Amino acid sequence: MKAKLRSFCAAAGMGMVFFGFAHAAGEEVPPTPNGIALPKGYKDWRMIASSHRTDNQSLRVILGNGTAVTAARKGKTDPWPEGTMLAKLVWKDRMHPQWQDATVPGKLLHAEFMIRDSRKFSATGGWGFARWVGMEQKPYGDDASFAQECFGCHQAAKETDHVFTVPAEIP
Amino acid sequence: MKAKLRSFCAAAGMGMVFFGFAHAAGEEVPPTPNGIALPKGYKDWRMIASSHRTDNQSLRVILGNGTAVTAARKGKTDPWPEGTMLAKLVWKDRMHPQWQDATVPGKLLHAEFMIRDSRKFSATGGWGFARWVGMEQKPYGDDASFAQECFGCHQAAKETDHVFTVPAEIP
Repeated sequence: MKAKLRSFCAAAGMGMVFFGFAHAAGEEVPPTPNGIALPKGYKDWRMIASSHRTDNQSLRVILGNGTAVTAARKGKTDPWPEGTMLAKLVWKDRMHPQWQDATVPGKLLHAEFMIRDSRKFSATGGWGFARWVGMEQKPYGDDASFAQECFGCHQAAKETDHVFTVPAEIP
Repeated sequence: MKAKLRSFCAAAGMGMVFFGFAHAAGEEVPPTPNGIALPKGYKDWRMIASSHRTDNQSLRVILGNGTAVTAARKGKTDPWPEGTMLAKLVWKDRMHPQWQDATVPGKLLHAEFMIRDSRKFSATGGWGFARWVGMEQKPYGDDASFAQECFGCHQAAKETDHVFTVPAEIP
């Protein structure tokens, strides 16, 4: 019995180790309450834009999957095409340590996503909303209704397909 | 004679068309006065950071080649390794059309680069400096001495290998 218990504890311990490792590598991050999985490889996606909000002191970079980047660079974003995935990385801003009139990324606040699937997400403008909070990538929202909170705020961008991102000029 | 002239003009016209196309695609952008060629594919490099300067109202995204991104994500940037290439895209900032407390990229001011080659660029901290201005990608500087202007300003970042970029936290 003791041996079995030891064996179980060792296995559980190893399991925790593996889970911890996998999570750190972005493999086992839990999905959001509306069932969206963290898009793989998003941090290696290409750049579409940046922004700085002074109402909540945050600096942002917006990346996109291939479909999104192609659309952005061709100016074909009205509407954004099916399959578009936009990732917005949001950091608390802070003063540049060597240049006091510059603001740079501080602590990561969250990574948030908009995923275009007009059928699946017809209740929220054809966009699936998802957010993972902090470096620990905790899914945002107590239940699936959190997406209504996202969509409510994005009403301000109704004229641009509910997307705030303004693709940057790139030569 | 007339036929030959027509033929020459047609060929010249086609040449101009081709040159225009090639330049627009970033193939025929002239090198900088210190002999640096525009790095190919830089706009598809991965994201390292962003920044916002309030002294000259500009918003920036910093991208890096593979060597740079690997170094940044491992925190191995003191010094940045040989072969590092950093690209900083700089836009005039402007108010977000739908969110007055947000700043987004406006007109592209320039794309500028730091290229680590300790031998070749030993006079400027082991960095080759280059900048192309505007969407037309005009090389910056009247002669090779412009790099001293860059290096002079980057003295403020001497403690961080003359690099102002602060790699952002990425999960």
